[in-house]
Amino acid sequence: MYRHTRELQFTAKPEKPDALFAAKFQEILGGQFGEMTVMMQYLFQGWNCRIPGKYKDMILDIGAEEISHVEMLTVMLARLLEGAPGETTEKAAAANPVLAAVLGGQNPQHAIVSGGGARPTDSQGNPWNAGYIIASGNLLTDFRSNAAAEGQSRLMTSRIANMTDDRGVKEMLAFNLARDTYHQQQWMYGIQMLVEEGFAESEIERSNGDWEDADAAHVFYTNEGSRAGEGLWATGNSVVDGQPFRTEPLRPLTDDQGILPAPDPLQYVTYDGSQGPGKPGNAVGGAVQQAENVVTKVKDAITGDKH
Amino acid sequence: MYRHTRELQFTAKPEKPDALFAAKFQEILGGQFGEMTVMMQYLFQGWNCRIPGKYKDMILDIGAEEISHVEMLTVMLARLLEGAPGETTEKAAAANPVLAAVLGGQNPQHAIVSGGGARPTDSQGNPWNAGYIIASGNLLTDFRSNAAAEGQSRLMTSRIANMTDDRGVKEMLAFNLARDTYHQQQWMYGIQMLVEEGFAESEIERSNGDWEDADAAHVFYTNEGSRAGEGLWATGNSVVDGQPFRTEPLRPLTDDQGILPAPDPLQYVTYDGSQGPGKPGNAVGGAVQQAENVVTKVKDAITGDKH
Amino acid sequence: MYRHTRELQFTAKPEKPDALFAAKFQEILGGQFGEMTVMMQYLFQGWNCRIPGKYKDMILDIGAEEISHVEMLTVMLARLLEGAPGETTEKAAAANPVLAAVLGGQNPQHAIVSGGGARPTDSQGNPWNAGYIIASGNLLTDFRSNAAAEGQSRLMTSRIANMTDDRGVKEMLAFNLARDTYHQQQWMYGIQMLVEEGFAESEIERSNGDWEDADAAHVFYTNEGSRAGEGLWATGNSVVDGQPFRTEPLRPLTDDQGILPAPDPLQYVTYDGSQGPGKPGNAVGGAVQQAENVVTKVKDAITGDKH
Amino acid sequence: MYRHTRELQFTAKPEKPDALFAAKFQEILGGQFGEMTVMMQYLFQGWNCRIPGKYKDMILDIGAEEISHVEMLTVMLARLLEGAPGETTEKAAAANPVLAAVLGGQNPQHAIVSGGGARPTDSQGNPWNAGYIIASGNLLTDFRSNAAAEGQSRLMTSRIANMTDDRGVKEMLAFNLARDTYHQQQWMYGIQMLVEEGFAESEIERSNGDWEDADAAHVFYTNEGSRAGEGLWATGNSVVDGQPFRTEPLRPLTDDQGILPAPDPLQYVTYDGSQGPGKPGNAVGGAVQQAENVVTKVKDAITGDKH
Amino acid sequence: MYRHTRELQFTAKPEKPDALFAAKFQEILGGQFGEMTVMMQYLFQGWNCRIPGKYKDMILDIGAEEISHVEMLTVMLARLLEGAPGETTEKAAAANPVLAAVLGGQNPQHAIVSGGGARPTDSQGNPWNAGYIIASGNLLTDFRSNAAAEGQSRLMTSRIANMTDDRGVKEMLAFNLARDTYHQQQWMYGIQMLVEEGFAESEIERSNGDWEDADAAHVFYTNEGSRAGEGLWATGNSVVDGQPFRTEPLRPLTDDQGILPAPDPLQYVTYDGSQGPGKPGNAVGGAVQQAENVVTKVKDAITGDKH
Amino acid sequence: MYRHTRELQFTAKPEKPDALFAAKFQEILGGQFGEMTVMMQYLFQGWNCRIPGKYKDMILDIGAEEISHVEMLTVMLARLLEGAPGETTEKAAAANPVLAAVLGGQNPQHAIVSGGGARPTDSQGNPWNAGYIIASGNLLTDFRSNAAAEGQSRLMTSRIANMTDDRGVKEMLAFNLARDTYHQQQWMYGIQMLVEEGFAESEIERSNGDWEDADAAHVFYTNEGSRAGEGLWATGNSVVDGQPFRTEPLRPLTDDQGILPAPDPLQYVTYDGSQGPGKPGNAVGGAVQQAENVVTKVKDAITGDKH
Repeated sequence: MYRHTRELQFTAKPEKPDALFAAKFQEILGGQFGEMTVMMQYLFQGWNCRIPGKYKDMILDIGAEEISHVEMLTVMLARLLEGAPGETTEKAAAANPVLAAVLGGQNPQHAIVSGGGARPTDSQGNPWNAGYIIASGNLLTDFRSNAAAEGQSRLMTSRIANMTDDRGVKEMLAFNLARDTYHQQQWMYGIQMLVEEGFAESEIERSNGDWEDADAAHVFYTNEGSRAGEGLWATGNSVVDGQPFRTEPLRPLTDDQGILPAPDPLQYVTYDGSQGPGKPGNAVGGAVQQAENVVTKVKDAITGDKH
Repeated sequence: MYRHTRELQFTAKPEKPDALFAAKFQEILGGQFGEMTVMMQYLFQGWNCRIPGKYKDMILDIGAEEISHVEMLTVMLARLLEGAPGETTEKAAAANPVLAAVLGGQNPQHAIVSGGGARPTDSQGNPWNAGYIIASGNLLTDFRSNAAAEGQSRLMTSRIANMTDDRGVKEMLAFNLARDTYHQQQWMYGIQMLVEEGFAESEIERSNGDWEDADAAHVFYTNEGSRAGEGLWATGNSVVDGQPFRTEPLRPLTDDQGILPAPDPLQYVTYDGSQGPGKPGNAVGGAVQQAENVVTKVKDAITGDKH
Repeated sequence: MYRHTRELQFTAKPEKPDALFAAKFQEILGGQFGEMTVMMQYLFQGWNCRIPGKYKDMILDIGAEEISHVEMLTVMLARLLEGAPGETTEKAAAANPVLAAVLGGQNPQHAIVSGGGARPTDSQGNPWNAGYIIASGNLLTDFRSNAAAEGQSRLMTSRIANMTDDRGVKEMLAFNLARDTYHQQQWMYGIQMLVEEGFAESEIERSNGDWEDADAAHVFYTNEGSRAGEGLWATGNSVVDGQPFRTEPLRPLTDDQGILPAPDPLQYVTYDGSQGPGKPGNAVGGAVQQAENVVTKVKDAITGDKH
Repeated sequence: MYRHTRELQFTAKPEKPDALFAAKFQEILGGQFGEMTVMMQYLFQGWNCRIPGKYKDMILDIGAEEISHVEMLTVMLARLLEGAPGETTEKAAAANPVLAAVLGGQNPQHAIVSGGGARPTDSQGNPWNAGYIIASGNLLTDFRSNAAAEGQSRLMTSRIANMTDDRGVKEMLAFNLARDTYHQQQWMYGIQMLVEEGFAESEIERSNGDWEDADAAHVFYTNEGSRAGEGLWATGNSVVDGQPFRTEPLRPLTDDQGILPAPDPLQYVTYDGSQGPGKPGNAVGGAVQQAENVVTKVKDAITGDKH
Repeated sequence: MYRHTRELQFTAKPEKPDALFAAKFQEILGGQFGEMTVMMQYLFQGWNCRIPGKYKDMILDIGAEEISHVEMLTVMLARLLEGAPGETTEKAAAANPVLAAVLGGQNPQHAIVSGGGARPTDSQGNPWNAGYIIASGNLLTDFRSNAAAEGQSRLMTSRIANMTDDRGVKEMLAFNLARDTYHQQQWMYGIQMLVEEGFAESEIERSNGDWEDADAAHVFYTNEGSRAGEGLWATGNSVVDGQPFRTEPLRPLTDDQGILPAPDPLQYVTYDGSQGPGKPGNAVGGAVQQAENVVTKVKDAITGDKH
Repeated sequence: MYRHTRELQFTAKPEKPDALFAAKFQEILGGQFGEMTVMMQYLFQGWNCRIPGKYKDMILDIGAEEISHVEMLTVMLARLLEGAPGETTEKAAAANPVLAAVLGGQNPQHAIVSGGGARPTDSQGNPWNAGYIIASGNLLTDFRSNAAAEGQSRLMTSRIANMTDDRGVKEMLAFNLARDTYHQQQWMYGIQMLVEEGFAESEIERSNGDWEDADAAHVFYTNEGSRAGEGLWATGNSVVDGQPFRTEPLRPLTDDQGILPAPDPLQYVTYDGSQGPGKPGNAVGGAVQQAENVVTKVKDAITGDKH
């Protein structure tokens, strides 16, 4: 369960409003790698976590902090938008014509939709969506996704920080940057513990590794003129089995030319007949066949037949 | 520039069609972590790469391979859809009533829209979109995102592989799993080289690290009852400066209650006047002020005034 | 700031798993009117609220509760998904062929993507997006949107409740239904207080009401054969000014046929010349003209000219 | 069926073009609460309405009017875009350098995509989508959603009206504002009639109210320091049963900590074994069990067995 | 302006309900090429049309018809959904266990969200969005898009028609198929008239054709082993200038390897310095330079200087 | 399979950077009709093509070229963004105040997200999505969609070309315009060959034409005052059967008023009882009935009964 406290986690006071900067600032609130993303990602991962104790608690602790970060950022945004140019009547333009030119750079929805408040969107106005987040239940892959998200998030925060001299904004961003520095490490230490405690074989996701194509796991495929063969990814050894990597030219490993079977004639797919006549699409494929077995099975159960 | 060869990179021949499995298989083609995602992510990263030579070549080499993977998967899908139940007339249902029950599990767009071909969507029919990919220009953060994507992609491929016994499908997935095993390592070796060659200070994204809030980069914030303090992320040391991490209860670090300034009265935001009277939103904020300086500046330039 | 407590707000224990029901249950978690929607809507409204005290606190109190509801629902979902049919190998199908038929109704992403956990999507797999929420800063319109959302949310919860006999699920939904009953009233009492305390003139949003087309605010426009004129909306009186409503046939109130001006010839818009010759699109419109005044203004300021 | 008449419902003639204003104006055409939203919402509600006569006719009458409003707005937009700066060649910039600065504020798709015509998007360029609308079949909840949409729509129209001094634009908006004033009342009178005529028990959606958690329908949950308990929503009485509301601190009503069951081992979810061993996900849950009964039932029907 | 008539354009009565078919039927209502798409496409094109008279009238006439088609399809859908399995309680499942298996194939939102009414989505539940439509203002390209949309729409209607034996459904679809046959021709005759009346040079969009790379307009580029050179597109003549097409192997026409310039150091893009030192991103590019001229220009205007 | 070559297909070198133009240029990379669209459309169509040889090869040849075009455009964009104003600190603004005004017109994600690289979005920042593309398997309808896409794509390229005087940009666009001129013809010749070789009856998609409503395929429906009857689409003859078209007023062809059946009472749809009492939604419709037959069928198979 979640509780709210009136105080913010950290001060969110700009020295002065700046509507143009606010439009850009939306990126680290509601963008692909904004705080809404890590907040929702950690909440879903935490609630979905199957290891009660330090792992689940850790994910949910940081989840609660991220809700608090989203709150801080929305407050900062509303303050940056104070007195933002909302209206340009002829009279206003007469008194201050430069205003007209500046208006273009603003996010019009800050005035029209949110009345000077933060929007749950990125810097181009795209609404945040859950296609940005992942909670797979596998902590190795999720922690690596989290470390990646914190890295991208920190980079964008850093770029935005370079776009202002406002000491109030920078004081808050100094906190956010530090948290992203810490959180990157948090997830990487998390991966280290998963391996140490036996929850993952290694840092490499390798389920069904026993039957993967072992040889293909050691090849870097290059194109003509490529110098990629000079990298460790081509000259090093597999961390899975210690065998060396090698370089091969990218080429077909098959003579399969992707010729497709005859189509269902009732779907009017253009076809030259080269793969034989098409059959109406109620032909019985794998899953359908399995389902049909029910008829046979029931019959057999009753009559006592056995194949 | 890109060239096409008729042969596929790897054989994509199922033993038999299976329309229900095909519906699920879409996830690793057009889903959040499907092959379309890594293909487009690597292409944009490669074209945007500012280090001619092994890094740019490596990204573009794997980009070309991923286009080839998308091709393999679409061929596999079209073959899995052969004879998929497209039509259920009364006559067909009379001959094979079980068919009706199975039809529900299919992806109806496989019959209606693509005529038995692959769709650029996930297993729930969501069209692929570019909000899944990132190309930041910073190779450290991008390589980590790539390693994360390969891990998630491999996990989903592995889960799907467990949903079939078709040897043809599994032969191709054995290849895909192996490539994902390799590619995870490729990106992690890439990060190692970036650090070794001085393109990144460490594995931690830490631009503007000189002015981040150094203390806040060492704290894990916990909630009541949490056991997260037992993890390395709380008991270990920072890889940035070697200083120990510590645990603190999550609490406000400020008395800022997020009280917002007076709103623009012309935006009809509900307000009690407690922060003073609101001003129409053509008040002059930071960026506007800067723009206005042009008037003064030109005047000064001409009259020779200096403030 | 937000804090987490390990206990849920309310028990979320189904009697038994039910993967088909789980697929539908997603609607009230991540759908248009699911709990994610009211959670994010109230959080943004609360942080954006300009009346410190009972209004802001009320919105944020319910916001915290809604995060807790999202948590409850995700736990319920993961429990409903226990043992959900994830794999159908030939062996499994041999032992239990009916399984194959049922698999179609499941949400494949519950198995492939989230590993048996809740997904941030609706019952058709659409990712939640912020286009579902509104925080306008105007409490009258927002409270009415909130009451509407609680009504729709309750209706969908009720429909879903009728789709199961599971007593564990129903016990939790009895709590959710009650909260939605209460919350609908909460927002309607909120509107009543806004009016009583003078934050809104009436329950009707009517900014700029002084210059709206007063007559047009009293007419119901009907089509041929329509019996809509029998309703109170046509026979009653305006709550704004007490004047009676009336019915008129829907008809043009103008002879303006929407003929458009000549297009920019450099945009290759098909045009017959009937509105005169088109001009290249760097013609100077309203806002451009205003911006251009800066040149004149500066010049005037310096030379002392006055128009 | 629908018929078209050449004349618009109301004049849509701006005094002069204004491309910057046009970019903002898109919000009330194709935004979350633009005219496209109410048009499509009323059309779907009307076609789906199960009460022939005044209710269905009323919804369809206003639906036809809203198509006409969308038409008016597109005409207004095309006229506002006359001569909009589409091209900036060096020559044009030489003659009029201020133009360059203004261009940024325009919607580039007005020039590139629609050739000076209206776009089916909001003021940030997001395409209109059907996730904005609702037609639930329940007139109480839908009418309340409609009243909310009209309120938000009117507020945004009013904010946009304050951004121009163009008398032609304002004349049309005076009509639109009036219609929104009227339409808000129309839906609220509609709710009143539904209750009066017995189509709804009260203004509160309360299906399945007989088994909801009656006590929980009377509580406002507060957080520390909150003053929300001062509101009518906490001090008033339920409109459903007349019983008083009360305030309680938000706290867990259960000791359920959301511990999840053992996961499917074939989905590679990270798990510590604390809830017992996981079983492959073809375990038989509720719906599957029900389906399996078919085998038993058929057998019984034939053999005459009865449990 | 638009008016509504109670009667549908064409009868929409299925012989009997069919919830599974209804789920698929959504594709031709709210899918990429469903009736909502052509309706909105023609409305926007018509309102935006700059040729008063037969062209504008034709587009708006068909636009009105398409609204009427959307109405017909929603009525058909609501009737197909009559008695659709909405609830599966234990009791219902006991009486009719097969029901459970079938439920999977239904669209759950038909029960949960729309209460047995049509949804503004496709057959996979994706909400309709305006990214499906185009109104460019250029009638040649728009008419060709319209002809294409009618063709795709007809194909999908035809595929769906093959999925049912319901005579009521087929009677309506026979009307829809015929309209799509007619409408394809309507748009193609429209193109013919545009050319005949001089509104388009030929059927080929060729604005700025005077300076396009004339030679590159005659080449088909092939890959190794391709037999595409056998087609008319390679062996025929250009309809623009009558010159023959030719075939060339796809190869780079430049030695430009896409090496990018030095990045802005404040954006932390990974870079090896090979293109010289990067400069902070306030370097002055094209548009910025143009804007800066205002300072010089004003100064010159006043001092009388002339370059 | 696909291979990469370091050289671009065509030079992509602007004379000078121009960040404002770059923002607009995104439209022809990642917009509805940008190069990403034709690339993905042709790839899916080609992989899905059922005619090995010249048709499949042709589609895949142009698909490979389009990947190369996307590459060229991303390089052009990154070069246009060189030195783009990324940061505006007080110091920068002091030295160059005009900068502030220009910043608004930029795409902020070019600085914040991609670090001066191309974005997979349109000119308004909407991420590219697969809802833009179609691969139906029917070459007639797909080729017509392709011709339409090339036409729209060329038009937008042409409009954008008019927005710059940069000779480097124009040289590349001269190539692109020419390719679009050629590709329009390529698809139209493709349609001609399909007809000539018997893969399509005529240029009109007319599957199931034998039972379409033949009369309705010859009528243009007009509204009052419309002059659309003057066009060839009303005065010409059907290309299908040579019969003349005719004009009729748009009017209902039925007395069906769209009255809907009684709703499921458990879905709480508002209803007046006029169509009789509603039944709970587990009534057995078409598909359910068919599925139920399995019980009867099995029973019959065993007992030897025959209806």
